[in-house]
Amino acid sequence: MVEKSIDQATLKMLKKAQRDGIETVWDRLAAQEPQCGFGQLGICCRNCNMGPCRIDPFGDGPSQGVCGAGADTIVARNLVRAIAAGAAAHSDHGRGIASTLLASAGGDTADYPVRDEAKLQALAAEYGIAVEGRATAEIARDLANAVLEEFGTRKGALQFINRAPEQRRAVWDKLGITPRGIDREVVESMHRTHMGVDNDPVSLILQGMRTALSDGWGGSIVATELSDVLFGTPRPVKGSSNLGVLKEDQVNIILHGHEPTLSDIIVHAARDPELLQEARARGAAGINVCGMCCTGNEILMRHGVPVAGNFLQQELAIVTGAVEAMIVDIQCVMPALPQVAGCYHTKIISTSPKAKFPGAEHIAFDEHNAMETAKKIVRIAVENYSNRRAEKVNIPADQMEYMAGFSVEAILEALGGSLNPLIDAVKSGAVKGIVGVVGCNNPKYIQDNSHLVFVRELIKNDILVVGTGCAAIACAKAGLLLPAAAEQAGDGLRGVCTGLGIPPVLHMGSCVDISRIMTVAAAMANALGVDIADLPLAGAAPEWMSEKAVSIGTYVVSSGIFTILGTVPPVLGSQNVAELLTGGAEKVVGAVFAVEENPAAAAKLAIDHIAAKRKALGL
Amino acid sequence: MVEKSIDQATLKMLKKAQRDGIETVWDRLAAQEPQCGFGQLGICCRNCNMGPCRIDPFGDGPSQGVCGAGADTIVARNLVRAIAAGAAAHSDHGRGIASTLLASAGGDTADYPVRDEAKLQALAAEYGIAVEGRATAEIARDLANAVLEEFGTRKGALQFINRAPEQRRAVWDKLGITPRGIDREVVESMHRTHMGVDNDPVSLILQGMRTALSDGWGGSIVATELSDVLFGTPRPVKGSSNLGVLKEDQVNIILHGHEPTLSDIIVHAARDPELLQEARARGAAGINVCGMCCTGNEILMRHGVPVAGNFLQQELAIVTGAVEAMIVDIQCVMPALPQVAGCYHTKIISTSPKAKFPGAEHIAFDEHNAMETAKKIVRIAVENYSNRRAEKVNIPADQMEYMAGFSVEAILEALGGSLNPLIDAVKSGAVKGIVGVVGCNNPKYIQDNSHLVFVRELIKNDILVVGTGCAAIACAKAGLLLPAAAEQAGDGLRGVCTGLGIPPVLHMGSCVDISRIMTVAAAMANALGVDIADLPLAGAAPEWMSEKAVSIGTYVVSSGIFTILGTVPPVLGSQNVAELLTGGAEKVVGAVFAVEENPAAAAKLAIDHIAAKRKALGL
Repeated sequence: MVEKSIDQATLKMLKKAQRDGIETVWDRLAAQEPQCGFGQLGICCRNCNMGPCRIDPFGDGPSQGVCGAGADTIVARNLVRAIAAGAAAHSDHGRGIASTLLASAGGDTADYPVRDEAKLQALAAEYGIAVEGRATAEIARDLANAVLEEFGTRKGALQFINRAPEQRRAVWDKLGITPRGIDREVVESMHRTHMGVDNDPVSLILQGMRTALSDGWGGSIVATELSDVLFGTPRPVKGSSNLGVLKEDQVNIILHGHEPTLSDIIVHAARDPELLQEARARGAAGINVCGMCCTGNEILMRHGVPVAGNFLQQELAIVTGAVEAMIVDIQCVMPALPQVAGCYHTKIISTSPKAKFPGAEHIAFDEHNAMETAKKIVRIAVENYSNRRAEKVNIPADQMEYMAGFSVEAILEALGGSLNPLIDAVKSGAVKGIVGVVGCNNPKYIQDNSHLVFVRELIKNDILVVGTGCAAIACAKAGLLLPAAAEQAGDGLRGVCTGLGIPPVLHMGSCVDISRIMTVAAAMANALGVDIADLPLAGAAPEWMSEKAVSIGTYVVSSGIFTILGTVPPVLGSQNVAELLTGGAEKVVGAVFAVEENPAAAAKLAIDHIAAKRKALGL
Repeated sequence: MVEKSIDQATLKMLKKAQRDGIETVWDRLAAQEPQCGFGQLGICCRNCNMGPCRIDPFGDGPSQGVCGAGADTIVARNLVRAIAAGAAAHSDHGRGIASTLLASAGGDTADYPVRDEAKLQALAAEYGIAVEGRATAEIARDLANAVLEEFGTRKGALQFINRAPEQRRAVWDKLGITPRGIDREVVESMHRTHMGVDNDPVSLILQGMRTALSDGWGGSIVATELSDVLFGTPRPVKGSSNLGVLKEDQVNIILHGHEPTLSDIIVHAARDPELLQEARARGAAGINVCGMCCTGNEILMRHGVPVAGNFLQQELAIVTGAVEAMIVDIQCVMPALPQVAGCYHTKIISTSPKAKFPGAEHIAFDEHNAMETAKKIVRIAVENYSNRRAEKVNIPADQMEYMAGFSVEAILEALGGSLNPLIDAVKSGAVKGIVGVVGCNNPKYIQDNSHLVFVRELIKNDILVVGTGCAAIACAKAGLLLPAAAEQAGDGLRGVCTGLGIPPVLHMGSCVDISRIMTVAAAMANALGVDIADLPLAGAAPEWMSEKAVSIGTYVVSSGIFTILGTVPPVLGSQNVAELLTGGAEKVVGAVFAVEENPAAAAKLAIDHIAAKRKALGL
């Protein structure tokens, strides 16, 4: 099983799953193999009912679909649709948070007070909304309305792009890829990829970039910033990670998915004395709320809630036999969960009106009645404790402490109020550069291995790593989020980390919080008076699997940051598209993608890139 | 070749194509066969990079993808993405028209005056915009802004759904599928179909319906209504159809695609004395502007411009050797056109920033400078006349007169100002019911055959046919749009048509103009005090191929109208989804889909359905 994961907890639970006769994601992948080569190469088109069409990659069969679209068009169209789906996911998430802020401001819900007034005021100022002498609710209402307006079609350009340096905005303007409205770009991408619309791969990819930018500088940044307003801006916080955080003597609740809206309330609901009393009455020592995936990251960043694992561990958490309820909202939730849960006592409870799962119990979450719904859900978990069967319980001991909570504000605080100490460290070479390591797990690759090999190599070479999502959880489980991990760093980075008392890998949040990384990158560029593309930065998604990652990668590259993908995207069926993404884009947006499955080789790419950027800056 | 088309012009040009060594859409289809069975059944999933995954339809191989999604989820997700793409296409088209109206109102362009002030005022009144004593530009600006607001996220419900009867709106409200914003529903559909979000086929299909409704009662209706404001509301008009409209002694320009924005101006530009003079100087007797597909329908409806053919004839028009320029905008434009044109002198000119085609010349159309761009394009065609090679020219003689232009307003005028005469005819049984016949051609089926067999059978049975799109062009070419075609109708319908001087098949416009059909259906239901689902109506897309058709079919069914698809949609891989669409939906939205490839059998389904609805109404 060593080819499945390097995480000991995962390996132990995989053995248990086998004993218990449970099929997991790895088994389903094996059953799907060999996977369709046309799909893997991106040269299968199902965009109209004259098809489906396939291009022969060897040149023996058809080189065009029924309409005449060739491999370049088909690959580009499929890529743009993936970006559109990913951007839609993040942006719809952002819309939800903005709507909650509006509901809160209008007094429609008492469960979502503004928790960070300073951030509210700062954002209002960014939008040109008056704050002096106005009530919080009034400011919040104006801000929520202004943000919701960004989803429409009439603004012409998004507010948050103004965080990017002038040089970068000029690049976007020149290319005509400045995003005009968050939803609009997704819709235009879907339109352009319809049969008989855009067939030029360059034109398509530029629209893909615009759509991705509407995510990174639109939907995602909205999700991040307004979540901070409502739930508090993260500050450094400590906690534990991996399946060992589950407790044999407590009611275990896992919050899985991506939104803080319900999960943040459940964290509070689980502290309700009445529910705790009920748990004790059933023989439990308490209620243990843990996170998973990005819902996990949201509450980990703000409350130090233990995180039970990343994407590939969602089924295995159930296999411990110790989870009373797994509460899911949106995104990256395997529909297989109810099937796995069927062999244990675990209840899978879906809560979002946007995401139902056959076999799961659905308790519609209503933000107007959030605490009541949260308590109802916690009670179900508590009651289910009585159904736990001791002989099925086996919680691996593996767990690891973490320090997380590195919002932009927290980083600034750690640095004494300004980015200058970090910039100085970069200038001096103590810190050679910064790499964002983000993204998912993918069962095609050894779980966490690419993340960890890549990250360790970087910090050893004095490169500060900032992480989000499942990548950050991988680092948490490996101890890389501890200040003590600075020992694994090169001399320069170790000195900086030790001086500040921070880890060499900074956990900046969930996947939408990659917007925090972009904000830091933009601020550094502004401070130095250069474009983002000039900075010694890189991005990487070593084990990505989702369409959100495609959107993220595209907005990071479009923002001028070299990005390394560790799993092969379905674009190799078009040499032109592949060359454009990995080569031609340099002249257009000042950055490219690289695809490198070997994480050590990927690290070398990042290190070399940063060295080249340093040289160009005269550092 | 008889299996390819029943259109004589098509068959003649197919023979010429063969002689000229031209590959057409039929050849490319043959090269693609056998097409992928997984794709045809809808059980292939490429929504994340753990895949691509395929469900084994025979039950021997995997029944789940890597994430655990089964056939039901995968089929439903693919269907929802097709709806999202189709809705996006129509809605983005509507956005374009609304933006042009705003530009016109703001004085940013002189080329788009408001041509129908009465309609502008009526729409303003519908939106609650004051009209009394206000300048046209002011009203237009307010209307354009109000409409553009519909694309956003804050309205809560679209304005035009209020045209639907109260009973129907109650159905939508109860199901939670009242569309909230035009773009928003597309984005939420893309979000929900992302890996790990919505996995419940019912929940997915309901969101698909909401998205489709945001097209039918949102984007499409916006495109129709504001096009009427800017370009004039269609009134009955006569013209000619089929490839025979091309003229051997004139400069032939074909306008192909979907938007009226450029094409309407080109119709005027081609009348420019200077350009006509230049054409004559090159030996041409004049400039002959013809339409194709829905751009053709837009200018056919408003100016009686000849229409050279429907979807499957776009390549064959070039094969005549007599086309100086084919000017394309968006949607249903085969990327194969430049390849075909490469064997003749024809110039393919793309004009939309949203749709470029490798090998075509791109002349960006700028609405602020519309007439100038239009003249530039016409001049290119005129100059290209000198390159025409007589030995390559062969225009089939086939052409047929039509009467078109049946907007809702035109129908009301024909009926003397109210729908009552039509309703009375339905009550008396002279007209048994009304069927909307719409949609594309599809090379998998004999061109126009399904349309014509279906339509002829209906009118013989006293069913009034209203048509749009390529279906209507098929009827035009077959003479069914002439008042004389009433001879082919049953006694009752013949009497009505003869009395009013109208054809038994009313051409109501382009594909977005199916919104006109919905408006009539809603008005009839309102007049009778019943739901749309109670009326003796049906819809059909006998030869559909595009994702737009999937969206259309879904909003028509969701509006309560039984809809027959003549080509098989990729849903048969899930028995549950197929049964929901063709059976279960009846209890939910009061209508279902039927799939029937045999057009005579399809007609029987429509006739029986209308008989049953009449019976239920006590008629």
